[in-house]
Amino acid sequence: PGKKVLIVYAHQEPKSFNGSLLKIAVEELTKQGCSVTVSDLYAMQFEPRATRNDIVGHLHNSEAFNYGVETWEAYKRGGLSKDLVEEQKKVQEADLLIFQFPLFWFNMPAILKGWMDRVLVQGFAYDLSKAYDGGLLQDKLSLFSFTTGGSQEMYSNEGIGGDIRYVLWPMQHGIMHFCGVKVLEPHICYAPENVSEDKRKEMLTAWTQRLKTLWKEEPIDCSPEWYFK
Amino acid sequence: PGKKVLIVYAHQEPKSFNGSLLKIAVEELTKQGCSVTVSDLYAMQFEPRATRNDIVGHLHNSEAFNYGVETWEAYKRGGLSKDLVEEQKKVQEADLLIFQFPLFWFNMPAILKGWMDRVLVQGFAYDLSKAYDGGLLQDKLSLFSFTTGGSQEMYSNEGIGGDIRYVLWPMQHGIMHFCGVKVLEPHICYAPENVSEDKRKEMLTAWTQRLKTLWKEEPIDCSPEWYFK
Repeated sequence: PGKKVLIVYAHQEPKSFNGSLLKIAVEELTKQGCSVTVSDLYAMQFEPRATRNDIVGHLHNSEAFNYGVETWEAYKRGGLSKDLVEEQKKVQEADLLIFQFPLFWFNMPAILKGWMDRVLVQGFAYDLSKAYDGGLLQDKLSLFSFTTGGSQEMYSNEGIGGDIRYVLWPMQHGIMHFCGVKVLEPHICYAPENVSEDKRKEMLTAWTQRLKTLWKEEPIDCSPEWYFK
Repeated sequence: PGKKVLIVYAHQEPKSFNGSLLKIAVEELTKQGCSVTVSDLYAMQFEPRATRNDIVGHLHNSEAFNYGVETWEAYKRGGLSKDLVEEQKKVQEADLLIFQFPLFWFNMPAILKGWMDRVLVQGFAYDLSKAYDGGLLQDKLSLFSFTTGGSQEMYSNEGIGGDIRYVLWPMQHGIMHFCGVKVLEPHICYAPENVSEDKRKEMLTAWTQRLKTLWKEEPIDCSPEWYFK
C-alpha cells in the first residue's frame, strides 16, 4: 500500500514462464496499491560488462584501470554513466527489490550479474566498514524469484545438485546482505518446463498467493546457519 | 609437456595483479612446453548476454524464444554464432582450463559468467543424462584462480564472508563438474590490493611454484563434503 517495488527481470521472452511470473507480480502488487518499476534487462539491452565506459570524463588513475576505485570515485563526483545512475535511482527509491530470472549454471544469468557488478558500486551500496548489517541500502527488502532446470529432488541434500540454499549464499548473503538489504524467503519454481500444464498453473497461483501476504513476512536470518545448517 | 591450456581471463587492466598472474601462467606453462591459448574477454569485448543473436539463421521455435533449446538445436546443426564456435573449439582442444579473474560479489565477473552461459551449451558440454561424471568434457582439468577484496580471515568459517569454499560450489561443482571436467584446487590470492609489495611478490612466486608441479596434482573430490564438510 504505497510501497515501491523494483523488479529486475532477466528473461528474453515475454511468453516464458518467467515472463508470466513477472506479469503476476506487476499485476498483484499494482492491485495492492504499490508503485512497481520493472528493469527488463534484455529489452533494455543492459550492458553487463564492467568497463571504463561506466565512468564519464577523466579517470582517477589512468595509468592502471581499477574498476572498483574508478566507480567509487566517479560515484562521489557524480560521474557514473547514465544507465547506472538511472538504475541506482530506482534502487534508492524502492522498498523491495525482486529479482526474477531463470537459474543458469547454479547462478543468475550474466546480464543480471552485470547489473549487480555495475549498479551496486562502493559509495552507493556499501562503503569502508559499511557492509553487511551496516550496508548503505538498509530498510530495503529483497526477494530472489527464479526457475530451475533441475527438479526439487536434484536440489536437495541427497540430490546431485546439493541443497538449493547453497546457490543462494553468494546472491543473498554475498550481495544483498553485504549491502544491508534484508532478504525474504526465495521463491523457487522447479523445472517448469518439465511439469504438466496443471502443475505450471498451480505454481503461478502459488506466486499470486504469496504476494498477497508478502508485506507481513519476516526476513530470513541471513547467516551461515540458514544456508548450511 | 605438449599439453594444451586455455586461460579464460577476465580483467580490464594488463598492469593489474590479475594481469601479472596471467603473464606468469603463460610464461611458466610455455616454458614447460605447453601450448597456451588466452581468451582475454575484455580485450575481445566478449558478449555476455545470452540472446537470439547466438543462433545463425532460423529458430527452432520462433513463437517463444527458449535460449537453452535454441542453442542446443543450433549446436546440432552447426548454427551457433562464430564467437561461440571459436570458444568451443578452444575448449575442445584444451587439456586444462584456467579461469583467471577478480572475485566480484562472491562470484565471477559478469563477462566470465557470460562465457559460461553462452559457450557451454547443451550438446557440447553436457546432454540428456550426460552430466556430472557423465558430462561431455571429460578428461579435461579446470582451475579457478582468482583474487579477492576481502582478507583470508573474512573468508573463513568464523569470518563474515563464510568459508571461501562456499563460493566455489556454484563454479566448480555447478559448472565444471556438471560438464564432466575435473577440478584442481583453486588458487586464491587474498586482498592483493591491501598487502605490502613484498607480500604481493610472494603471492606471484607462489603461483609460479605451483604451476611447476601442476601436472602432478590430483583433482579434488568435487562432492558436498569438500565444500561444506
